Amino acid sequence: MLPYLAEFLGTMMLIMLGDGVVANVTLNKSGMKGAGSIQITLAWGLAVMVPACIFGAASGASFNPALTIALASIGKFSWAMVPGYIIAQIAGAFVGAVIVYLMFKDQFDATEEAGTKLGVFSTGPSVRNIGRNTFCEAVATFVLVFALLGFGNVAGAGGVGVNYLFVFGIITSIGMSLGGLTGYALNPARDLGPRLAHAILPIKGKGDSNWSYGLIVPIFGPIIGGVIGALLYAAIPW
Amino acid sequence: MLPYLAEFLGTMMLIMLGDGVVANVTLNKSGMKGAGSIQITLAWGLAVMVPACIFGAASGASFNPALTIALASIGKFSWAMVPGYIIAQIAGAFVGAVIVYLMFKDQFDATEEAGTKLGVFSTGPSVRNIGRNTFCEAVATFVLVFALLGFGNVAGAGGVGVNYLFVFGIITSIGMSLGGLTGYALNPARDLGPRLAHAILPIKGKGDSNWSYGLIVPIFGPIIGGVIGALLYAAIPW
Amino acid sequence: MLPYLAEFLGTMMLIMLGDGVVANVTLNKSGMKGAGSIQITLAWGLAVMVPACIFGAASGASFNPALTIALASIGKFSWAMVPGYIIAQIAGAFVGAVIVYLMFKDQFDATEEAGTKLGVFSTGPSVRNIGRNTFCEAVATFVLVFALLGFGNVAGAGGVGVNYLFVFGIITSIGMSLGGLTGYALNPARDLGPRLAHAILPIKGKGDSNWSYGLIVPIFGPIIGGVIGALLYAAIPW
Amino acid sequence: MLPYLAEFLGTMMLIMLGDGVVANVTLNKSGMKGAGSIQITLAWGLAVMVPACIFGAASGASFNPALTIALASIGKFSWAMVPGYIIAQIAGAFVGAVIVYLMFKDQFDATEEAGTKLGVFSTGPSVRNIGRNTFCEAVATFVLVFALLGFGNVAGAGGVGVNYLFVFGIITSIGMSLGGLTGYALNPARDLGPRLAHAILPIKGKGDSNWSYGLIVPIFGPIIGGVIGALLYAAIPW
Repeated sequence: MLPYLAEFLGTMMLIMLGDGVVANVTLNKSGMKGAGSIQITLAWGLAVMVPACIFGAASGASFNPALTIALASIGKFSWAMVPGYIIAQIAGAFVGAVIVYLMFKDQFDATEEAGTKLGVFSTGPSVRNIGRNTFCEAVATFVLVFALLGFGNVAGAGGVGVNYLFVFGIITSIGMSLGGLTGYALNPARDLGPRLAHAILPIKGKGDSNWSYGLIVPIFGPIIGGVIGALLYAAIPW
Repeated sequence: MLPYLAEFLGTMMLIMLGDGVVANVTLNKSGMKGAGSIQITLAWGLAVMVPACIFGAASGASFNPALTIALASIGKFSWAMVPGYIIAQIAGAFVGAVIVYLMFKDQFDATEEAGTKLGVFSTGPSVRNIGRNTFCEAVATFVLVFALLGFGNVAGAGGVGVNYLFVFGIITSIGMSLGGLTGYALNPARDLGPRLAHAILPIKGKGDSNWSYGLIVPIFGPIIGGVIGALLYAAIPW
Repeated sequence: MLPYLAEFLGTMMLIMLGDGVVANVTLNKSGMKGAGSIQITLAWGLAVMVPACIFGAASGASFNPALTIALASIGKFSWAMVPGYIIAQIAGAFVGAVIVYLMFKDQFDATEEAGTKLGVFSTGPSVRNIGRNTFCEAVATFVLVFALLGFGNVAGAGGVGVNYLFVFGIITSIGMSLGGLTGYALNPARDLGPRLAHAILPIKGKGDSNWSYGLIVPIFGPIIGGVIGALLYAAIPW
Repeated sequence: MLPYLAEFLGTMMLIMLGDGVVANVTLNKSGMKGAGSIQITLAWGLAVMVPACIFGAASGASFNPALTIALASIGKFSWAMVPGYIIAQIAGAFVGAVIVYLMFKDQFDATEEAGTKLGVFSTGPSVRNIGRNTFCEAVATFVLVFALLGFGNVAGAGGVGVNYLFVFGIITSIGMSLGGLTGYALNPARDLGPRLAHAILPIKGKGDSNWSYGLIVPIFGPIIGGVIGALLYAAIPW
């Protein structure tokens, strides 16, 4: 049971810190409102790195159905464990988003704009274009999965924890370089769990949860891109 | 005596650098006024990391009564040493805050707003709500203590000092993601020592020291959350 | 073939992330427009570090004709492989820039200013002065090559991947300290490949590709400075 | 001769990158003008870390008379080498500042304010008060020297280069937390060498070089604070 628990708790913590930074810099009456994308991208990098350090040994610290499926597709993870991992990841992301809501309740109440509130939970495009948005998420997740596999080429890094600094690096890099397109979901659970929380929670003045976007782009983009990234990596005669 | 001295000096340095950055970016006539929360959160991460490197071997580099109590509550620290550690931590934080005042005296004198002056010393909420504020400090310190324990799962990191980079990471992460709620005390000594200094020092135009907040939220929130974090960590069958 | 493939893919990824950040923070309708030079310089550091980690063992992760030539000039790389490396690097940079264009197509279409669009692809001077611009690129690349060679003096860093953190450091350092002069090409392929893409792609409202600058400064400056940096390094009796 | 050459080249590079970032973000017509103190403090951290990596094995990478004297005062460096080190450091800083001027000549010419030009070369106080300014430089350098010695307590860090990341950390930390007081010289050579360059170079519209400040605060403050830091470190029974 430990790997599933680790995926649940790790994804919960990832969303607490990741959705947390968006709440922290975008909601009214937060003391750090307006800090902008540098804080968001650095904090998301840390939001992945911190639980990865804690749970890496226990579960591999995937926290991401696209990554889990990509690894399984090249034989680096057991298909039998994929469904349980995905459930744990989505459930963890859901609980993490609920905790963020409970912490920032007064700030949510002080914020008018429905889009800002949804933006704390889940991703959205700067220019809606389902085809290109999906392409962008696929490319970004391709880079993510290819890089995570490639970090294994750095001999010795895994033995002293430097590999987790690289994890911080790739998440921050993708956010800083490509994040303005779709909010860089990279991860179906990161988007779906909090979107479910948004739909269910009694948030004052919330708008709709934008399912026409959320059920397509941040789910299929990352899975497609991640699998292609893993297949390309496996095809290279390292 | 070395462990107590190390806790005193380490917490003093932590406050010199931590309260220092708040003075540096918020007081009038400071050359870095207005740098904002990115500088504050990065600098607080470094303000913990630097003394942790120096004093880690000597005392464990707790610098934090909530962490000290949490470690004792799961048998990772001796209860007999807890009172001495807490006294050393609060005393160190007090002296650190006095040094910050002496360095920034001209900037304090040039600043009108009493709340800004108190904000250099101690934390405060963006929306006052004692119950939720305490909850927020508890959750944030839960994450801190759970993460610090969890970093021990990274085999080899402690042997080359990479664990101290993770310490920087978790402090910066919590600040960037949750700091806009209550100023992320996370640590009763970090808040109480400087608040005592604020109360005692002859600061021109200072207001009250907000003890109705300071004696509850930044003390009980971190202790409760830290202990729960340690207990959960110990309950997981790693 | 692996080293050439690695140089191609690595330079492609470098430009995807490097030109990506410029698009991300300068084009209209990007969600991170206006983030400024801190995000650009940190992201360029990561844009080099990430593929360096992945491909370092396969090809040495040069991604840069100036570096490749500099290494060959002091006997640390085979002259016979130089032409193939340079072709792979320019081709990778070209493809990377095309991918950035495909991702940011809607943002390019929403941006009027032709100079901003060219700026996503390639570098340009803040004050045009071909002589001094070339001198600045030469000095900056001198520092880059000298530092990359000098990092080899840190015993043990290469065995655990810490050397890649230094790579992040030197790229970010040069960008933050000298980048406002010429946009810190440092690398003929980084500039030429994307400039070719700019010239060929059907970008709406694009201006000219500024070949009178691009064929001189970002090509000869880095090569001259890089070779001098390598020769000085080799001349020191370490 | 190698140690002296290393101190010369390392301090030259430190000033090229350190004075470079100030020019880069404060002079008119620089492409990164206005980036502010986050970029300055991160870049100064890198400006020290990069040459420290390169020259650490050759000379100990002091680059700083205050540090050199402090180390000698506790027997960790030979007094006989102190004069040569200091001369090499000041000369390197002078040459580094001249190179920055040559690179940013067009930007200097486009900038009216004499104080901004001097600020590229050397430090100055936000509130002039020679006594307190000297105290602030002493405290900041006390922290620097105490921390640099204390990093030696992290077993294993020096063997893989992680100690150089701590060097980045302490320089950035002091800058972010205390830099708004006096511009954190911390180092007589860092201030004196460039101030000499400012006095000698034919900079258009330059004002005076503020020797009444420069010959006292950034020289005696760091030396006093550094020696006290070293003595305290040596007095602790680690």
